[in-house]
Amino acid sequence: MLSTATRDALASVGTATVSMQLLKRGLRHTALAGVKPLAPDQGCVVGEAYTLRFLPLREDLSDPAVLGAPGYSPRVVIEECPPGAILAIEARGIATTGTLGDILATRLKVRGVAGVVADGAVRDGPGVMATGLPIWCLGSAAPASITELSGGDHQIPIACGNVTIFPGDALVCDADGVVVIPAKLVEEVAAGAVGQDRFEGWVQDRVAEGRPTIGLYPPNAETRAEYEAWKIGSSGS
Amino acid sequence: MLSTATRDALASVGTATVSMQLLKRGLRHTALAGVKPLAPDQGCVVGEAYTLRFLPLREDLSDPAVLGAPGYSPRVVIEECPPGAILAIEARGIATTGTLGDILATRLKVRGVAGVVADGAVRDGPGVMATGLPIWCLGSAAPASITELSGGDHQIPIACGNVTIFPGDALVCDADGVVVIPAKLVEEVAAGAVGQDRFEGWVQDRVAEGRPTIGLYPPNAETRAEYEAWKIGSSGS
Amino acid sequence: MLSTATRDALASVGTATVSMQLLKRGLRHTALAGVKPLAPDQGCVVGEAYTLRFLPLREDLSDPAVLGAPGYSPRVVIEECPPGAILAIEARGIATTGTLGDILATRLKVRGVAGVVADGAVRDGPGVMATGLPIWCLGSAAPASITELSGGDHQIPIACGNVTIFPGDALVCDADGVVVIPAKLVEEVAAGAVGQDRFEGWVQDRVAEGRPTIGLYPPNAETRAEYEAWKIGSSGS
Amino acid sequence: MLSTATRDALASVGTATVSMQLLKRGLRHTALAGVKPLAPDQGCVVGEAYTLRFLPLREDLSDPAVLGAPGYSPRVVIEECPPGAILAIEARGIATTGTLGDILATRLKVRGVAGVVADGAVRDGPGVMATGLPIWCLGSAAPASITELSGGDHQIPIACGNVTIFPGDALVCDADGVVVIPAKLVEEVAAGAVGQDRFEGWVQDRVAEGRPTIGLYPPNAETRAEYEAWKIGSSGS
Amino acid sequence: MLSTATRDALASVGTATVSMQLLKRGLRHTALAGVKPLAPDQGCVVGEAYTLRFLPLREDLSDPAVLGAPGYSPRVVIEECPPGAILAIEARGIATTGTLGDILATRLKVRGVAGVVADGAVRDGPGVMATGLPIWCLGSAAPASITELSGGDHQIPIACGNVTIFPGDALVCDADGVVVIPAKLVEEVAAGAVGQDRFEGWVQDRVAEGRPTIGLYPPNAETRAEYEAWKIGSSGS
Amino acid sequence: MLSTATRDALASVGTATVSMQLLKRGLRHTALAGVKPLAPDQGCVVGEAYTLRFLPLREDLSDPAVLGAPGYSPRVVIEECPPGAILAIEARGIATTGTLGDILATRLKVRGVAGVVADGAVRDGPGVMATGLPIWCLGSAAPASITELSGGDHQIPIACGNVTIFPGDALVCDADGVVVIPAKLVEEVAAGAVGQDRFEGWVQDRVAEGRPTIGLYPPNAETRAEYEAWKIGSSGS
Repeated sequence: MLSTATRDALASVGTATVSMQLLKRGLRHTALAGVKPLAPDQGCVVGEAYTLRFLPLREDLSDPAVLGAPGYSPRVVIEECPPGAILAIEARGIATTGTLGDILATRLKVRGVAGVVADGAVRDGPGVMATGLPIWCLGSAAPASITELSGGDHQIPIACGNVTIFPGDALVCDADGVVVIPAKLVEEVAAGAVGQDRFEGWVQDRVAEGRPTIGLYPPNAETRAEYEAWKIGSSGS
Repeated sequence: MLSTATRDALASVGTATVSMQLLKRGLRHTALAGVKPLAPDQGCVVGEAYTLRFLPLREDLSDPAVLGAPGYSPRVVIEECPPGAILAIEARGIATTGTLGDILATRLKVRGVAGVVADGAVRDGPGVMATGLPIWCLGSAAPASITELSGGDHQIPIACGNVTIFPGDALVCDADGVVVIPAKLVEEVAAGAVGQDRFEGWVQDRVAEGRPTIGLYPPNAETRAEYEAWKIGSSGS
Repeated sequence: MLSTATRDALASVGTATVSMQLLKRGLRHTALAGVKPLAPDQGCVVGEAYTLRFLPLREDLSDPAVLGAPGYSPRVVIEECPPGAILAIEARGIATTGTLGDILATRLKVRGVAGVVADGAVRDGPGVMATGLPIWCLGSAAPASITELSGGDHQIPIACGNVTIFPGDALVCDADGVVVIPAKLVEEVAAGAVGQDRFEGWVQDRVAEGRPTIGLYPPNAETRAEYEAWKIGSSGS
Repeated sequence: MLSTATRDALASVGTATVSMQLLKRGLRHTALAGVKPLAPDQGCVVGEAYTLRFLPLREDLSDPAVLGAPGYSPRVVIEECPPGAILAIEARGIATTGTLGDILATRLKVRGVAGVVADGAVRDGPGVMATGLPIWCLGSAAPASITELSGGDHQIPIACGNVTIFPGDALVCDADGVVVIPAKLVEEVAAGAVGQDRFEGWVQDRVAEGRPTIGLYPPNAETRAEYEAWKIGSSGS
Repeated sequence: MLSTATRDALASVGTATVSMQLLKRGLRHTALAGVKPLAPDQGCVVGEAYTLRFLPLREDLSDPAVLGAPGYSPRVVIEECPPGAILAIEARGIATTGTLGDILATRLKVRGVAGVVADGAVRDGPGVMATGLPIWCLGSAAPASITELSGGDHQIPIACGNVTIFPGDALVCDADGVVVIPAKLVEEVAAGAVGQDRFEGWVQDRVAEGRPTIGLYPPNAETRAEYEAWKIGSSGS
Repeated sequence: MLSTATRDALASVGTATVSMQLLKRGLRHTALAGVKPLAPDQGCVVGEAYTLRFLPLREDLSDPAVLGAPGYSPRVVIEECPPGAILAIEARGIATTGTLGDILATRLKVRGVAGVVADGAVRDGPGVMATGLPIWCLGSAAPASITELSGGDHQIPIACGNVTIFPGDALVCDADGVVVIPAKLVEEVAAGAVGQDRFEGWVQDRVAEGRPTIGLYPPNAETRAEYEAWKIGSSGS
């Protein structure tokens, strides 16, 4: 379960810093390909993944009548995705069909869901943006999901933007896109990221003052010592 | 011929609703892949398609001198596409070469053409946007069409964004992209879309009030009855 | 060496005109595929290319420790790319990993580098945009370059957006993207482009007045004579 | 459960006829993209699908040690896929990593599994072919599955070659590739296919004799009558 | 009209030599991407193109009933493509649907058509190969054309394998694939190709004897003189 | 320098075993995508890489006259690639243009070059195969390299099939394709591969006898002990 402190820490550092922490632990496949903010100013959203899978189209499974069938996962998740969670959708990288529109987005917003991540599109882009629900996706497209996809299960591991997401993994979403943190690594990645972020802020100030980057970023032993001294002085005040 | 009433009806509902009406009639292949508004606020444009085809590059057909040859289709259409129509261009999904620039866009605008749809780019994006002509395409690129394409015929069936467009089909273009309505289905799709749009507006209000979506959208029998009652009351006032 | 006059001439005409001049000289492969402005209002930047190559990932060459190794090209270029030059990066068309972030962008800006061109992404898009360094790329992505790439050499010929760039080639970058002018053709292309640009401005005025494009653009003999007469009158005043 | 009669009927007609029967029932998305016979003479194999999913690579899930972990699905299926069934593998269309090699293929063959279908590769192509197990896939590649994939679950719906396969669906595999028949349609498709196949054999004989195809194939009323008469005569003898 | 002499000359040299002759005349876009011989030993076939276009799928145009409609181009061409010509089919690069099967291939063979070229697949690969009709395509696939395509017109310019083919262009097809010669260039390309082929045969003999390639291939002045002398001696005998 | 013993060891085990040894050392990016044997029975070839780069086409660098220019790398390497080495060519994954034809292949064969690896095609496939030079590539295509590429440098690091190859790296090529071993790891990978290969041979025998794979492959402690005992007995005889 993601604590408020961890969530805040991750939101304060963003995806670039988080992905470096994951790389340092040997994980290179954590950033979703092609998945970008729908609206220009969605900020940074962090939450646990609640997952939904779509399958390739099979016509007998994608008749419009299916949308009202009891237990149809793409509609069940709209009511069951927990407040504070992020609905993560495997849409097979298909940018020409929407996984949800303004009505379902409104319901997710009303229910307190933190956001939506999909390697697919949404329908009626302006209408969805007007709900204020933060969404990371491949853009907007007019056709309904059943035009090119069939509903699959929910709360199973999914492939999204060529990355695996398990239910409960942490998702960090900002202007650069979405990064997945495996559940078991969340605390340590958050701690490492905060330290890295503070160091990089200090480096950024030095570079802005005109200092060259060699030996500074990444730091050699001298730079490290200088930064440690600065940290003591800075926190001493 | 597209009546003003039909055109207005389609423009009021937009592509998401139109594509659902087409899906209900068994047509899944109607939304152009990758074709998006060039300018951020082009609204919804509706018109009949006037078509132009480009072919793969063959150097002897794409010498700059060809642009001035009598009967060269890519230039003929600039003068012959009727006012109110939409110039629909097959550009083979090539985003690195432009199908027209600011001079030709100005001429189309002056002549009253309603807009341009292309599965290719335009040249000099800011210049084209400055003409005020609404355009749906793959973005902007510097090179002229003949850099990667050769001119083909006009007013023949075309493939655009992986969708077939016949001369005279209706095109509905908005923030989500472009949807094609086969000419013979335009009236019935427009009628169905207006009904669907009114119902979805009512649903959106219910969801905003906090109602769950199961049984509401898509509606079960009870919801349908409630909506019918509301419609009578609503139109009775 | 690019003179100020040539640089200004190229910046005044932009990529669409430059690419037509190159096409007239038989060069069709000069516009970078997919490489677009990162910020919406970067204007037109012109400069000589200073090049950097990335290679496909090999894990033993992409350990985070490599970033601090002496002579590591992706860091050397940050300090050695000359003021006024454009850093051109071969990133293999990979949009899911960033070639530089806000710290390195700040350093390039401080050092007077004119801009960056990459067929890859940048990290921390908003942070990089805040530095004011003009960048043409595939967008932003969180992971560091070593997540999917290994550093190669610098100041060698590169492939960028499916186009060859040699060190010292001129790059013209605007809203439509980036066009490469081989070093030996820069002067003649600039001269031709200025003439073409002036003619097209005159044509644009005629079209705005309502004149048809056939015979005008491209011009027939009559139009040419009319333009020559106008030029004399225009410069005579 | 697939009866021997149905299995034999489907094997006698092959994928082209089966896919036409599915198209006549409104199913266009049934043939796996890119999945072809590994060996040149595997004939036609029919069986029920037993499914396995791979997920995108996450390094912590793809350490070589994972291959020996209890319950690891890609190894469990080797022992549990029933005799007569076809092991169907979702490998995400990745042709550069193998889903199984000669040792696992030998075990499947020994256990009486009918074949393997994968939208991925096998390792050690010649060794796998030497086992005699019929395989439809994207070819062969040296690296093990965990080089680019992570193991997922088994006996869940999968996406394979852009087609959905449910456990228990019938797979028909021949020189043209693989076609999926939804479990509930198997009997009726088999019956329809046998009738179609007989008719097409008769047509083929007529065409070989020099008859034109218009009115013959597809048949007009006259041709239908002629065929019905032939059928009576033919079965009467 | 292709003379027997020209046809024989082109068949004797093959596609590699023909494409070099086209390159020397400034044509780089003449070899069809991805289009390969269906059977391993089809030799070299030369003929004039008779063209057929398919369009993207629109369901109302691709009902199975359409196959029997009068004037449906994909069936008309089976009866009208002239003996000695090559049926060239635009199938949009779709390898998962077949443009014709064994019945139609038999009819084309019976009628004396020289071959088929398609940037699509054929149905029932072994059955089609058994007819003996030489075919260049993307391989075989089970579904009928109307599963993913809609029939277009015939005898119009087509795009096939990213190359433009006009009715009447010459097609040269061998183990390397298919090269298109614009009709107006056929005679001169054939003449040039025969000369080049003879020279390269002589070079090949020299290289097999152990001579280095520098100065020999391409030839410097000395080598040219040596070859000219050899030619005189060789024809003098 | 590759010793005969190491070369023989690598050739005896093949690419599947080698790639597993590399994976165990953390290297996942070592198998060339799409690069396959040109002829069906080329066996396993091992050699050091001698590299050549092609760049994207720029027309002024790809005039046919360039082929005879002194120092043109694609022709220099034909005379300078050492006997026993493998000529490794970066051709940008372009399958529609050939990097060499039968004349150059003959010369390489005469000079004792061990083979060619290219992420591109060869010209005149049957002619090249007739030379007996083993080649791993994307197939055959008629046009010459300069139709779509421009010559770059040789003996520099290259990207081939999405993998980095340095001059001097070992290449192992067999029916599954090509795997690159970084020069510094060759000895240890060869040693590890021979041990793995012997173990897998023993496992294969057990599986053929009917043993289940769980606990056997990968081996648990018991299986390991059994194998060690077998090894002693086996080498003792």
